[in-house]
Amino acid sequence: MSQPFRITRRVEFGDTDMAGIAHFANFFRWMEVAETDFLEARGLSVAWDEGGERFGFPRVSVACDFSRPVRFRDVMEIAVTVEEVGRKSVRYRFDFSHEGKPVAVGRITAVCCRKTPDRGLESIEIPARVRAKLTGS
Amino acid sequence: MSQPFRITRRVEFGDTDMAGIAHFANFFRWMEVAETDFLEARGLSVAWDEGGERFGFPRVSVACDFSRPVRFRDVMEIAVTVEEVGRKSVRYRFDFSHEGKPVAVGRITAVCCRKTPDRGLESIEIPARVRAKLTGS
Amino acid sequence: MSQPFRITRRVEFGDTDMAGIAHFANFFRWMEVAETDFLEARGLSVAWDEGGERFGFPRVSVACDFSRPVRFRDVMEIAVTVEEVGRKSVRYRFDFSHEGKPVAVGRITAVCCRKTPDRGLESIEIPARVRAKLTGS
Amino acid sequence: MSQPFRITRRVEFGDTDMAGIAHFANFFRWMEVAETDFLEARGLSVAWDEGGERFGFPRVSVACDFSRPVRFRDVMEIAVTVEEVGRKSVRYRFDFSHEGKPVAVGRITAVCCRKTPDRGLESIEIPARVRAKLTGS
Repeated sequence: MSQPFRITRRVEFGDTDMAGIAHFANFFRWMEVAETDFLEARGLSVAWDEGGERFGFPRVSVACDFSRPVRFRDVMEIAVTVEEVGRKSVRYRFDFSHEGKPVAVGRITAVCCRKTPDRGLESIEIPARVRAKLTGS
Repeated sequence: MSQPFRITRRVEFGDTDMAGIAHFANFFRWMEVAETDFLEARGLSVAWDEGGERFGFPRVSVACDFSRPVRFRDVMEIAVTVEEVGRKSVRYRFDFSHEGKPVAVGRITAVCCRKTPDRGLESIEIPARVRAKLTGS
Repeated sequence: MSQPFRITRRVEFGDTDMAGIAHFANFFRWMEVAETDFLEARGLSVAWDEGGERFGFPRVSVACDFSRPVRFRDVMEIAVTVEEVGRKSVRYRFDFSHEGKPVAVGRITAVCCRKTPDRGLESIEIPARVRAKLTGS
Repeated sequence: MSQPFRITRRVEFGDTDMAGIAHFANFFRWMEVAETDFLEARGLSVAWDEGGERFGFPRVSVACDFSRPVRFRDVMEIAVTVEEVGRKSVRYRFDFSHEGKPVAVGRITAVCCRKTPDRGLESIEIPARVRAKLTGS
């Protein structure tokens, strides 16, 4: 789907572990930051209110493959691509690189949900307005 | 105020940083765990609903002094003491030790608050029922 | 690969997000805790020194599918299964449940590595001693 | 000591807790980011090698007072001031604000240390070169 959306992110001291590299769980926080920026750039959000109801895109499936460690003060580029927009879900791909070399490839599948009165979540079809912005069409 | 309440907590791999020791910010998460356990043991909670309203103990001041580093798989003891119960606030002290040696001393001051309809927080007097349990009287 | 190894883990206040549920990235930290406990129970570690060299099991691929949200003070059971032991890698499966209901299924693939003098990592065959303990044979 | 050094930092989704606000422990990670940026701007680092030895500025005392909650996507300004440079230690002050209003004031006291061969840390006098850059003189 056309040009990936890109952000940069630095590895902070607190992101490292005793192996001297960025701890793997942080990659999911970085994906989330990239997702937030991507949605914002498209005029969307991971959580919003509409017609007195609360909507959002909770994650149902996430994954990450690591190919190269990064260290304190390394600045990564994170490229966001919308891989698939289904009836109720969207799948993002995140390509992490450092100085042009691949570091990791992550994926997040999020499902469009409405908050039910009992604090539960009910999956719904992605509204047309949101879908159009996600696909960039 | 009598006997301290004690829990133990292990340093996990993801709690360490590139210096090979537990990252200092984690001590605040550990204090919070100890606070949760302490309150639970007294039949209290950091956040509760009562009479249709939402109450809680947000932190207004926190601090930690470190005397000895801890490492992956070290099991710390955390002793919780209620240092002071004021009209609206409570101050906890947390003594971290490892194999009998002091590691860190932390403090959290939390203020009793009611959630206002506009998502704000209004400080209130600690209810008598809660105060009695906090002081152990 | 017989009986799964089990630990329990509580959702702490700091593990939650503004949606009122445990933030998804924390599941990877919990998998790591379960992996540490599992390895320890088998007399192994995620990182060790042997013959003057440093060895470890860095993660090369991780994933998690979520089926049910968990909240502050929910106690989860995490069952660890060794799904596959390859020549150089091991894949763990983590089944998260709460009150008997499935919450999430996670996977970590870790590759046996030797630290090289230049701070790099070189994948190696899993030593026979380690393999025997991983497979429980 | 002259003009404070300033950075901005956004509250991410994963930084929030079930109270709908940024979790208090994150302020210490943000202070660390601001400290890293400040040191970098002065040509310094929190950890460095010199003459075959490893030096660093581990934290011995940290604190934070909170005056106003911040929420998802709020962009804070963090102003760093060097409050005091002692013989062996430096104390930073961090003023967090959002839209011109104070959010929190944090402090970190870090002690200059040399790593000893047994993985320990020994406090040392701040080298003249480092001191000159810290004080901006």
